[in-house]
Amino acid sequence: MMTKWVYGFGGGTADGRADMKNLLGGKGANLAEMSSIGLPVPPGFTVTTEVCTYYYANGRKYPDELQGQVEAALAAIEAEVGAKFGDADNPLLVSVRSGARASMPGMMDTVLNLGLNDTTVVGLINRSGDRRFAYDSYRRFIQMYSDVVLGVDHYHFEELMDLAKEEKGVELDTALDADDLAALTQRFKDKVKQETGEPFPEDPRDQLWGAVGAVFGSWMNQRAIVYRKLNSIPEEWGTAVNVQAMVFGNMGSDCATGVAFTRDPSTGENVFYGEFLINAQGEDVVAGIRTPQQLTVAAKRAQGSDLPAMEEAMPEVFAQLAEVRRTLEQHYRDMQDIEFTVQQKKLYMLQTRNGKRTVHAALRIAVEMAAEGLITHDEAVSRIEPRGLDQLLHPTLDPKAERRVVAKGLPASPGAASGKVVFSADEAETEARKGERVILVRVETSPEDIHGMHAAEGILTTRGGMTSHAAVVARGMGRPCVSGAGQIRVDYADGSFFVGDVTVKAGDRVTIDGGTGEVMLGEVPTVQPELSGNFATIMEWADKVRRMRVRTNAETPADARAAREFGAEGIGLCRTEHMFFEGDRIVAMREMIVATDEKGRRAALAKLLPYQRQDFVELFRIMAGLPVTIRLLDPPLHEFLPHTDAEMKQVAEAAGISVETVRRRALELKEANPMLGHRGCRLAITFPEICEMQARAIFEAAAEVAKAGEDAPVPEVMIPLAATEKEIAVLKAIIDRVAGEVKAASGVALEYMVGTMIELPRAALQAGKIANVAEFFSFGTNDLTQTAFGLSRDDAGSFLGEYVDKGLLEADPFVSLDQEGVGELVKIAAERGRAARPGLKLGICGEHGGDPASIGFCETVGLDYVSCSPFRVPIARLSAAQATIALQSQKLAAE
Amino acid sequence: MMTKWVYGFGGGTADGRADMKNLLGGKGANLAEMSSIGLPVPPGFTVTTEVCTYYYANGRKYPDELQGQVEAALAAIEAEVGAKFGDADNPLLVSVRSGARASMPGMMDTVLNLGLNDTTVVGLINRSGDRRFAYDSYRRFIQMYSDVVLGVDHYHFEELMDLAKEEKGVELDTALDADDLAALTQRFKDKVKQETGEPFPEDPRDQLWGAVGAVFGSWMNQRAIVYRKLNSIPEEWGTAVNVQAMVFGNMGSDCATGVAFTRDPSTGENVFYGEFLINAQGEDVVAGIRTPQQLTVAAKRAQGSDLPAMEEAMPEVFAQLAEVRRTLEQHYRDMQDIEFTVQQKKLYMLQTRNGKRTVHAALRIAVEMAAEGLITHDEAVSRIEPRGLDQLLHPTLDPKAERRVVAKGLPASPGAASGKVVFSADEAETEARKGERVILVRVETSPEDIHGMHAAEGILTTRGGMTSHAAVVARGMGRPCVSGAGQIRVDYADGSFFVGDVTVKAGDRVTIDGGTGEVMLGEVPTVQPELSGNFATIMEWADKVRRMRVRTNAETPADARAAREFGAEGIGLCRTEHMFFEGDRIVAMREMIVATDEKGRRAALAKLLPYQRQDFVELFRIMAGLPVTIRLLDPPLHEFLPHTDAEMKQVAEAAGISVETVRRRALELKEANPMLGHRGCRLAITFPEICEMQARAIFEAAAEVAKAGEDAPVPEVMIPLAATEKEIAVLKAIIDRVAGEVKAASGVALEYMVGTMIELPRAALQAGKIANVAEFFSFGTNDLTQTAFGLSRDDAGSFLGEYVDKGLLEADPFVSLDQEGVGELVKIAAERGRAARPGLKLGICGEHGGDPASIGFCETVGLDYVSCSPFRVPIARLSAAQATIALQSQKLAAE
Repeated sequence: MMTKWVYGFGGGTADGRADMKNLLGGKGANLAEMSSIGLPVPPGFTVTTEVCTYYYANGRKYPDELQGQVEAALAAIEAEVGAKFGDADNPLLVSVRSGARASMPGMMDTVLNLGLNDTTVVGLINRSGDRRFAYDSYRRFIQMYSDVVLGVDHYHFEELMDLAKEEKGVELDTALDADDLAALTQRFKDKVKQETGEPFPEDPRDQLWGAVGAVFGSWMNQRAIVYRKLNSIPEEWGTAVNVQAMVFGNMGSDCATGVAFTRDPSTGENVFYGEFLINAQGEDVVAGIRTPQQLTVAAKRAQGSDLPAMEEAMPEVFAQLAEVRRTLEQHYRDMQDIEFTVQQKKLYMLQTRNGKRTVHAALRIAVEMAAEGLITHDEAVSRIEPRGLDQLLHPTLDPKAERRVVAKGLPASPGAASGKVVFSADEAETEARKGERVILVRVETSPEDIHGMHAAEGILTTRGGMTSHAAVVARGMGRPCVSGAGQIRVDYADGSFFVGDVTVKAGDRVTIDGGTGEVMLGEVPTVQPELSGNFATIMEWADKVRRMRVRTNAETPADARAAREFGAEGIGLCRTEHMFFEGDRIVAMREMIVATDEKGRRAALAKLLPYQRQDFVELFRIMAGLPVTIRLLDPPLHEFLPHTDAEMKQVAEAAGISVETVRRRALELKEANPMLGHRGCRLAITFPEICEMQARAIFEAAAEVAKAGEDAPVPEVMIPLAATEKEIAVLKAIIDRVAGEVKAASGVALEYMVGTMIELPRAALQAGKIANVAEFFSFGTNDLTQTAFGLSRDDAGSFLGEYVDKGLLEADPFVSLDQEGVGELVKIAAERGRAARPGLKLGICGEHGGDPASIGFCETVGLDYVSCSPFRVPIARLSAAQATIALQSQKLAAE
Repeated sequence: MMTKWVYGFGGGTADGRADMKNLLGGKGANLAEMSSIGLPVPPGFTVTTEVCTYYYANGRKYPDELQGQVEAALAAIEAEVGAKFGDADNPLLVSVRSGARASMPGMMDTVLNLGLNDTTVVGLINRSGDRRFAYDSYRRFIQMYSDVVLGVDHYHFEELMDLAKEEKGVELDTALDADDLAALTQRFKDKVKQETGEPFPEDPRDQLWGAVGAVFGSWMNQRAIVYRKLNSIPEEWGTAVNVQAMVFGNMGSDCATGVAFTRDPSTGENVFYGEFLINAQGEDVVAGIRTPQQLTVAAKRAQGSDLPAMEEAMPEVFAQLAEVRRTLEQHYRDMQDIEFTVQQKKLYMLQTRNGKRTVHAALRIAVEMAAEGLITHDEAVSRIEPRGLDQLLHPTLDPKAERRVVAKGLPASPGAASGKVVFSADEAETEARKGERVILVRVETSPEDIHGMHAAEGILTTRGGMTSHAAVVARGMGRPCVSGAGQIRVDYADGSFFVGDVTVKAGDRVTIDGGTGEVMLGEVPTVQPELSGNFATIMEWADKVRRMRVRTNAETPADARAAREFGAEGIGLCRTEHMFFEGDRIVAMREMIVATDEKGRRAALAKLLPYQRQDFVELFRIMAGLPVTIRLLDPPLHEFLPHTDAEMKQVAEAAGISVETVRRRALELKEANPMLGHRGCRLAITFPEICEMQARAIFEAAAEVAKAGEDAPVPEVMIPLAATEKEIAVLKAIIDRVAGEVKAASGVALEYMVGTMIELPRAALQAGKIANVAEFFSFGTNDLTQTAFGLSRDDAGSFLGEYVDKGLLEADPFVSLDQEGVGELVKIAAERGRAARPGLKLGICGEHGGDPASIGFCETVGLDYVSCSPFRVPIARLSAAQATIALQSQKLAAE
C-alpha cells in the first residue's frame, strides 16, 4: 500500500482528526478536526511528520510519491476555493506553516501569500479591487519568503522600505501608495537576486517546495536542536507542514480578524470573551496599534468602550461565530482559544486550541462544565493543574505592581512576602515581636533558626536547593521562601548583602516571590488569596475518587492543625528532632549528647521525656484518632551541639562536666559526610536509651489520651535509615518492651505499629527481609534520591542547575521523583515488601509526597498514602485523584 | 518411616560418614568415618543434632523413639566391647561429649568414666587390677558429672580434696592411696546430696540421660548463645551428643596416650610429628606436667631428647600407628591432627581432623601431596588460605619477641614495622632522608601526606576505617598500617600522643602490626618474608586454572612495577588525581581550581598536560601492551586546595589573582557532604576542559609509546561517578573528539575504549542504558557500598565496629563485599549491561578486588577481571583460581 504522506482538509471534511497530532502536528490536527465537524476552515493540506523523518533518514530527499500527493491536494483546494494556483485571473494564494507535535521556538513559522508573482498579483488586484492591498501583500510575501526560505536577512528589505519613504518624504508605511509599493516590490526582487545570485522564484510551485523545504530544514537549525534537547523532544518526532488557502481580513470594511476565548480565561465566567478589528490582519490585533473592539455588547458596556461590538457591527457573522463557539465547546468539551478571519462577510476559522486560564478560571470552568453536563466530575477534577492551587493558598504579588528584580533563586516555598531584612533568627524574633514584618536572610538555615523562620514573613537563602533545610521547613510552615540565590553574597559582619553593585542593609525592605524565586527591592504590594466554593467542590469530587490517602509531615500543633484544615488524613512524618530545639529542651538535648556514659545520657533523657510526651499528647489530640507516624531521632547528633562559648558553658554546667570536655566532644562528633554518618537508627543502636525514651514518650502520651476518653491514637513508630532487617529487629524489641511496660503501668490496651523508612538502596533491595520485621514502610525519597544518585542535596546546588539546563536531567530529582532510577528502587521495595507481608502498608514521606508527577508515580506503584507539608495537602489530594483517574482510564484502554 | 535419631560406630563399621557433619557434628562424623575405614575406634554412638532441634521445638522433650534407639546402640557397644553397662563384674564405662558442626566454646564438653557407681567400681578394680586407679576414676567422674550435669560447682570438691590431704598431712594428690580415694568418693557423694537435695545418681542409665540432657541444655546457655550470635551460627543447627566406650591410657605401663600431626605443621615436611606419654591421660600431654616423648627416633635425635621414642618404647603399637597415619592421609587426602590412646598395648583412635598449619607448611604440603598424586593441582590450589599469603609478602613480628601492646586499631595494611614516631609528612620525609626509620602518626591522612607515607616504614591513624585514605594508600604502597586506633589521642601541638596513661613523644620508638592492628611500645624485632619455590608452584597452578584476570590499582611507576612482579595483568584503576600532588603540579592544579573562568582553567591545565602525559608514557611502558584503565579526575576539587597562608599566596601569584579571591574560592568549594558532592564526572560536565586535557594526555602518551615501536597500549578511559547515560555520552563525545585530533596530529592509529565506573545504585539499575554508551564497566564497590548503605567510610568508624560486634553486620562491608545488598546491585548491573551490549567487559576496582570472599562473588557474577593494590595481586590470583574451581565443582554437582 502506498504511504499517505499528505492529509487534506476543508469543505466540511478532512483526512485527519484531532487525535492525530503525532502525524499531523497540533495545528494540522485541529484544522482537520474543525473542518470535519463542519466549521468554515479555509481548505488546505498537511504534509505529515513522517515526511520530515523520511527526509532526514534519506539524505534530505522526499519520498517519491510526495509530489503527486501534494499536487492532488492542491487540486482539491483549487476545486474548493474555485481559484487556481498560479492563475492570472483568479489565483489561489496559500500560507505555509510548520506544525510540530508541540510548539517549538526556532522553527520556521509562517510564509503568507505564497503564490504571488508578477502575473498573479494582477489577478489579486482584480479579485480584491484594491491595488495597494495587492502590492502590499506581494512585497510582504517577498520579504517574508526571502528571509525565512532564501536566507536574505530582513534588514535588507527594511532598508529599502526606509529608502522609499525617504525618497517620498513620508514617515509612515501607510503613506506609500500602490505605485510606491509596486516599485518597492521590484526593488525587493532585485535585492534578492543581488544577495543570492538567483532571481526570486516566480513559479508558485517552486515557491511552495521552497517553503516546505525551509520548514523541514528549520527542524535541524541550532535553536530548534537546543530547544529539543532542553525539552527532551526526540529528533525522530519531526515536524509537519501545513499549506492552507489564504483568507484576508484586511480586504475592506466587510473584512475583519479576531481572537477569542469561549469563556473568560481570567474568571472562568461563561461569557464569550474576545476582541476583533475590522479590515485588519491577525497580527494587528496583537500588535496593539489600533484599539480592538469587543465581541459582545455586554463586554462593550462592561469595558465602557464606545467602539461598536461585533454583535452590532456584523450581527450575522457574529451569530455564526457564536454558533461556532457553542459547537467547539460541545465538541472539544473544554474552553477554547480561537482565531478567526472574516473575508467579505464570510467567516473563516484559522485555529482552535484549549485556552490557557488562571487557576480561578480553571476551577469555575471545570465545575460549571460539569454542571452543564459537558464533562464528568472526574474530568473536572483532571482539568485542574495541581500546582496552580499554590496561587490559591498563598499571597501573590499584585500583577499590576512594579517590581525591581535584583536576583533570582529557587522557588522553594510558594507565596510572596515583603519586609525588613534581618540576618539572624533572634533578630527576626525581636523585630516580629515589635510588630515588624521581616524577611530572614541567611546563607543557609539550620534547625536552630526555626524560631526565626516562624517569626519571619519570608525566608531568603543564598545556598541550598529545593529540599534544603530552609526550603523544607518553610514549605512546612507555609512561609514563602527563595533558596539558593547564589548571586547574592551575605556579609553577616557588616549586616548587609550584595548582588552585583546593589547593597542591601539590614532594615532595608525587600520582597521575595517564592513561586518564581525572584528577589525584589522595596515592598511590592501583594494580593491575599481567596478560596472559592469551586475549590471546595473540586476537592470534594477529588476526595471521592482518589484511592490514596493524604497525610502531612508535621510536628508542631500549628502545622498539624493547618494540615487538618487542608484535609490531611493523619500525620505521615513527625520529625521528633524538631521538638528538641525550644527553650530548656535544647540544653537537656545537648547535655545528653555531651554525656560520656549511658548514665549521663539517661539523666538528660529523663529531662526530655516529659516535653516529648506532652508534644505527642497534643498531636494525638489534634489528629483525633487518625494515624500518626512518629520517626525516631534521625539527624547526626552534632546538629544539636552548642556553638557559642555561652552555650558551651551552659551545657557544661547542666551536665556537670568541663567546657573543655564539651568542646572535645563537639570535635569528636564532627563528620566528613554527616549525611552518611552516625544518624538515623544507627544512633538508637549505639544509644538504645534514646529509642527507649522516645518509645516511652509515645506510648505514655497515647495512654494519656486514651484514658481521657478521647479518640485513641494508633501511633506508628518509624525507624529511620535502616540498611538491614537486623537493625529493625533490635530496635523493635526495645519498642515492644517499652510498650508492654507502659501497658502494664497504665492499664490501657495500646494499639501501635513499628515500621521503617525505606531510604537506602540496600533497604529497598532487602525489602523482603525487612518486611518480615517491619509492619509498615514509608519511602524516604529524599535520602533515597541522595543515595541512589550519590548526590548531596546540600551541595548539589552548585551543579544541579547546569545538569537540568543542559538536559542531563529532566528535572531536579529532589523536586520530582526520578522515576526510572529512584522509582525502580521504590517499585522493587514495594513488590518485595508486599510479597513477604501481604497488605503491608506503604507510604511516602519525602518531599516528593507533595509533587504531582511523583504522586502519579506513587499511584502506579500502589502506595497506600502520600504525606507532604501542610500547605501541599490540597495539591496532593487533587494529584492523587488525578492519578487514580489516569490509572483507571489506562486500565480501561488496555482492556 | 521411623526417623533415625542415633548413629552407631565401631568394630570396623559405622552408620555415619565424614560428610554427615550437619547431622552428627564434626567429632561424631569423623569417629564414624575412622571406624568405617577399619581404624581402631572405641565403639560408640552419636545422638544427632536433629534430636537437639526436636528437643527445643517440643518443650525440651525427646522424640518417643529415642530411648529405644539409644538402648539398641548401647547394646551394640556392649557386644563389641564385651562388657555391660552397669555390670558388677565387667562394667562398660563411656564418655559423653558434645559435638556441634563447628566447635563452640561455652558448650558442655566432656564427662568421662560414666557408668561408675559403688557396684561397678568393683568390676573396674577387678578388670584393671588397680584399686587406686578405679577409685581415682570414680571420684573424678563424680566431680566432673556433678559440676557439668548437676551444677555443683567444682570448688566444693577441691575443698574436700584439700581437706583429705590436710588430714593425711600430704601435699600431692598422688600421695592419697586407694582407701583415701574411696573415702573421698563417699564424701563427694555426700556433698552432692547436701547441695542438690538428691543423692548422686547411682543408676548408669540415669547418669547417661542426665549427661545427654546436659549437653543439649548447654546449647542454650548464655555463653553459647553469645558465641553463636557473634559467629552467625543459627540456633537451628543444634548439637549432637557422642557416647563412646572408655579406653584408658593410664591403666599401667603398657598404656599411653598421645597427639600427632601426620606432617610437620610448621614446615610442612612429610614426617610423622607428635608426642606421647606412657601411663597417662590425654590431658597430661597437653598440661605439660610431664615431659612428653617423641614418636620417632629421628625426632628424638633432632630434639636431643634422652627419653625413648614411641618407635623404641612400643615398636608394635608404633608400627600400627604409622600405618594409621598412612591410612588417614590416603583417606582424607590432607594432613591430619590425631589423638590416640594405647590401653594395654591396644591402639585406639580418639579423634582425627584436618590439621592447622602455617602458610609455609600449607604450601609445601599442598605441592608435595600433589606430587605424591594424593591430590590434584586444583585441590592443591584450593588448600591455601589466600589471606595467609600476606605473611609471605610482608615482614612479621618475631613470634618469640616480647611485645607491650598499648592500643589496638584496625589491621589496615599487613606487615609489621618499627620506628621513631613523627607527626607530619614533612617530618617523616626529613627523618627518612637522614636514614631514620619512622612511623607516621596522624589523626587521619589526606592526599598531601602521600610523600610522608612513602618515606615512613608504617602508618598509624586514630580515625578512619579499613578503606580510609591511609588504609587504601598504605595497601597500595605495601606499607604496614594500623588505622582508626580510637583510644589514641594525638596532640599535634604538643608533639605527642596519649593512650590511657601512656604518653608517647615524637622521637619515641613504637612498633605497629598491620596484620593485627596492634600498636606496641618500643621496637619489636621483625622477621623478613621469604618466598619459597612452593609459592611459585602454587601460583603457577592457580594461574593455569583461573578464569578471571587480575589487574592492579596503581598510578606510580613504583607501584606499577611492583604489581607486575606480583603478576598483575594490567592496570584496572589509575587514579589520576594522585598524580597532581607532587612539586609544581599541585601549584598548577590549585591555579586551575581557583580560576574563575574557563580561560584561567585552560591556562593552568596547559601546565599540567606535559606532566600527566609523561606519567602515562611511563605507565604504558611498564605495562607493555597490557590494558591500562585510567580514571578521569574524581575527588572534589577542595581536596587540592591550599591550606597555609604561604600556599595561598603562592597560588594567588601563580594565578595572578588576590589571596582574598583564593580564600573565598576555597570557602565556596567547601561542601557539607563532599562524598556526594561536586566530584567524579560532575567535574568534567561542569569543566569539560579538564576532561579534554586528560584525554589529550592519555592519547598523546599512547601515540608516543606506539611511535617508539614499543607495545602499543590500549588505554581504557574511565568516567567516574556517572548516574545517567547522558553524562557518559557528553564526555565520550569530548574524549572521542580529542582522540580524533591526536590521531590526526600524530598519524598513529590509536585503539582505546571509553567506559565507566558503576559506583552508584542508580547507575547499577540503569546499566542497560549506560551500556549503550559505555564500552566497559568497572565496579567501584567502595562508593557503591557507601551509597547502597548510606554509609560514609570516613565516618563509619565510630559505630561500624559495634555493628560487627553485635552481629548486625557479618563483616565490615568496606572490607568484604556485602553480597546480598551491594552484590545484588553488581549482579543487576552485570546482567543489564551485558544484555544491552553482549560481551561487555566487566571488572571490579574497589578495595573488594583484593578480598578473597569478594573475589569468589565476582566469579559467580562472571566478571572478567578484578583489580587490587599491588601487594594483594598474589592473593587475588589465588582467590580467583579457587573461585573458578569452586564454581566448576558447584556446576558439576548440579549436573
